[in-house]
Parts: sequence; structure tokens; C-alpha cells
Amino acid sequence: MPDSLHQLNARLLQFARERDWEQFHSPKNLAMALAGEAGELLEHFQWLTEAQSAALEDEKKRRVAHELADILLYLIRLSERLGVDLIAAAEEKIAINEQRYPAEKVRGDARRAEEYPE
Amino acid sequence: MPDSLHQLNARLLQFARERDWEQFHSPKNLAMALAGEAGELLEHFQWLTEAQSAALEDEKKRRVAHELADILLYLIRLSERLGVDLIAAAEEKIAINEQRYPAEKVRGDARRAEEYPE
Amino acid sequence: MPDSLHQLNARLLQFARERDWEQFHSPKNLAMALAGEAGELLEHFQWLTEAQSAALEDEKKRRVAHELADILLYLIRLSERLGVDLIAAAEEKIAINEQRYPAEKVRGDARRAEEYPE
Amino acid sequence: MPDSLHQLNARLLQFARERDWEQFHSPKNLAMALAGEAGELLEHFQWLTEAQSAALEDEKKRRVAHELADILLYLIRLSERLGVDLIAAAEEKIAINEQRYPAEKVRGDARRAEEYPE
Repeated sequence: MPDSLHQLNARLLQFARERDWEQFHSPKNLAMALAGEAGELLEHFQWLTEAQSAALEDEKKRRVAHELADILLYLIRLSERLGVDLIAAAEEKIAINEQRYPAEKVRGDARRAEEYPE
Repeated sequence: MPDSLHQLNARLLQFARERDWEQFHSPKNLAMALAGEAGELLEHFQWLTEAQSAALEDEKKRRVAHELADILLYLIRLSERLGVDLIAAAEEKIAINEQRYPAEKVRGDARRAEEYPE
Repeated sequence: MPDSLHQLNARLLQFARERDWEQFHSPKNLAMALAGEAGELLEHFQWLTEAQSAALEDEKKRRVAHELADILLYLIRLSERLGVDLIAAAEEKIAINEQRYPAEKVRGDARRAEEYPE
Repeated sequence: MPDSLHQLNARLLQFARERDWEQFHSPKNLAMALAGEAGELLEHFQWLTEAQSAALEDEKKRRVAHELADILLYLIRLSERLGVDLIAAAEEKIAINEQRYPAEKVRGDARRAEEYPE
């Protein structure tokens, strides 16, 4: 993990311990909390066109930034509880995606891998 | 953003450009994709007890790590498209939470801020 | 509950009991399962334009119909476990929305209630 | 669709038309709104134990009932926009599940279909 994620992780651990909240932070519960924040993120965008979603006014953008932050914070907590190296997992997943979606095969095509004919 | 997130961001941008996929990556669509991955994360935990969720066997842990990775990747893409500094937003959000949930008031208590009596 | 929902409810109860799955069907777990299905629903639409989402080809429509079904089935299970009358709750909620969003005030406007100035 | 769902459907259509909100109700957007409500549902349960989730106090139960209602309402709207018969799809899906998870094979076992060895 890079330094900034390490620092966030340490600060979140201290935050939870000072409040005696680690008892609530099972991976199951943290996954629910993360998905709840993802739901809040959706609510900001659900009635916007795609173009509007790319041109948020400042106050809305600030709120969206805080939803993204909430998701990152639960992602860091969850990785800590599971003993997952988040950056390493992300690098591994990009490598998998590069294999699964060869540029020449999928260019400009939005289907998911399982929607391609064999 | 720390170096590792910068590097992931650059690699994801290149990945999208080589596939002509930036056209699909409106913030609205990326928010949906992120929430879809959060849903997949839930599915790994839904029938487990909290204790089981903290003691995954290796293969399951690897799959969960990839879901966390997918969420991080969409989080980075979304931040890039919105011009949000993800780490700065996370630091800001932690500071807000430290104010909203004073340790002496909420210790051992799992209610959300709005569930406390005024 | 209308007859069809009653029948689905009875069939789902029997399905769970024959498999000894009621032990897994706490409201917490069923809420997770429902949200997981909602995530799968999103995945069908995430790279489509709004117009494309309204003109699905048959095979895709059939898959989407099954996601909607999964969500309904968990909704019925959850209502049964919580002792909630789903139809009564829905009627109550529509009445609340009719109050909260008076037609003359919100016509053609997609903001959420809390986004209106007081 | 049974009478109660038909009535809810008609009332929701009128609600949307009176507010000129049908323009926002593409299947894509309604799927997002439904998933957003599923996220709110999660938030009620995320820090509760499974046992607590089965013994909600009255006020919390009322709120949860309204989240379930919101999900049902979007489910009905989405089915209407897609031309899906929700009850028929649910019956079809139960039949599929009865085949996929034979009682004698899966009794007391919480794995998902794809997690069983061939």
C-alpha cells in the first residue's frame, strides 16, 4: 500500500478503536456498509443524463466526492480486516482484464466478457 | 494521490483509450459499475456468519480481493472523470466523522448520527 | 397481500424449509441478498444509453426479467420474516410521496425532496 | 399481475404523469433508483447482528417497511416500462431455482450453485 493509504488505514484503525467500534467491523458488516455508500452514490446520478453527470456543479461535486471517500474508507477497512493488499489486488485485476479484453477484439464494444460468443 | 494510485489511474486511462471505452465511462455509468461490483462483494458474504466472514479460505479470499480491486478501479476512474482528489476527499471525510462521532459520546454504540436524540 | 403474492410467499417458504435454508434467512442476510440482486440488475444497464435500456432485445429482456423476479422473491421473503404487509406499506409510501412532491411544485424537476430550498 | 399490483402500477403511472416525470423513468434510471433504495435498506441492518435484525423495534420496522415499499414501487415501474409480467417472471424463476437446487443435494448448505463441484 502506498503511504497515503497506509496513513488512512492507521487513522481509521485508531478511529474505530477509540470508539470501541471494531466489534461491529466484521468483513460482512463492512461489505454492507460499503454497498450502502455505493447506493448513496447512485442516488446523486440516477435522474441525471450522462452529460449532466460529467458537469456537476460545485456543491453536488463536493457531496459526490464525500461518497467516493466513504467508499474508499470502507474499502481500506475491509482490506485491513481481511489481510488483503488492495494495491496488489488492483494490479492483478488490471492484468486479468488486459487478458480478458484484448484491445483488438473489444474496441468500442461495451459487452461484458461472458456476452461474447465463444 | 499517492504514487500507486497515480500509476493505477494512468494504466486505467490507457486501458480505456486503447479499447475506445472512454465513451462509456460517464460518471453516471461508472457509478453504476461500481455499485454493481459492490453487489458482487455482498454475494460473497450474504450467507456467512460474521465470524465466517472473518475467516475466509484462500480461494474465497482471492475472489473477494478481486471484488475489492474492481471497486477500487472504478473509484479511481470515477475520481479521474470528476476531477476529484480521492485521498484529499478521504482525509476531509475522516475529519468530518471525527467531529460527528465524538468518542466519548458514541463508544460501543452502533447507531448512525441521525439516530441520536438531539 | 394479493393472492399472487400470497402464493409466491407460500411457495418460497416451502422452498426454504425443504432445503433447511430458513436458518440463513435472517432479515440482515436477506437484505444483503436483495441488494446483491439489485447489483446484478445494474450490470445489465451500466453501459447502455437510456434509449437502449428501453429497447432491449429478447434474450437480454428475459435475463432482466429474472433479475426483477429475484428481487421480488427476496422482497417477499424479507416481508414475511419481518411481518411487514408489503402492499399496505407500498400504499402508505405512495401517499407520503404524493404529499412530499406536490405536482404543481415539482413538475418536470428531478431534484430529490431534500434538494429543494425551504 | 394481481389486482393490488395492477392498482399500484396505475397509481404510479398517474403519479409520474402528473409530475411530468416519465421523461426521467428510463429503465436504466429506474434500475439505479431501485439499487439506491436497496442500499438504504442495507444501512438499516449493517451494524445489527442477525438476531437483532429479526427483532426490530416498531419505529425502525416502520422505516424498513418503507424501504421495502420503495423497492417494490420501482420494481413495478421498471416492469411496466420494460413490458415484463413481474408475477409470471417470479413463478418462472422459482421453477428454475427448484431445478437448480434439488432439496436432497443442498439441504442446510449455503453455497451458491456455481460453488458446487460438478
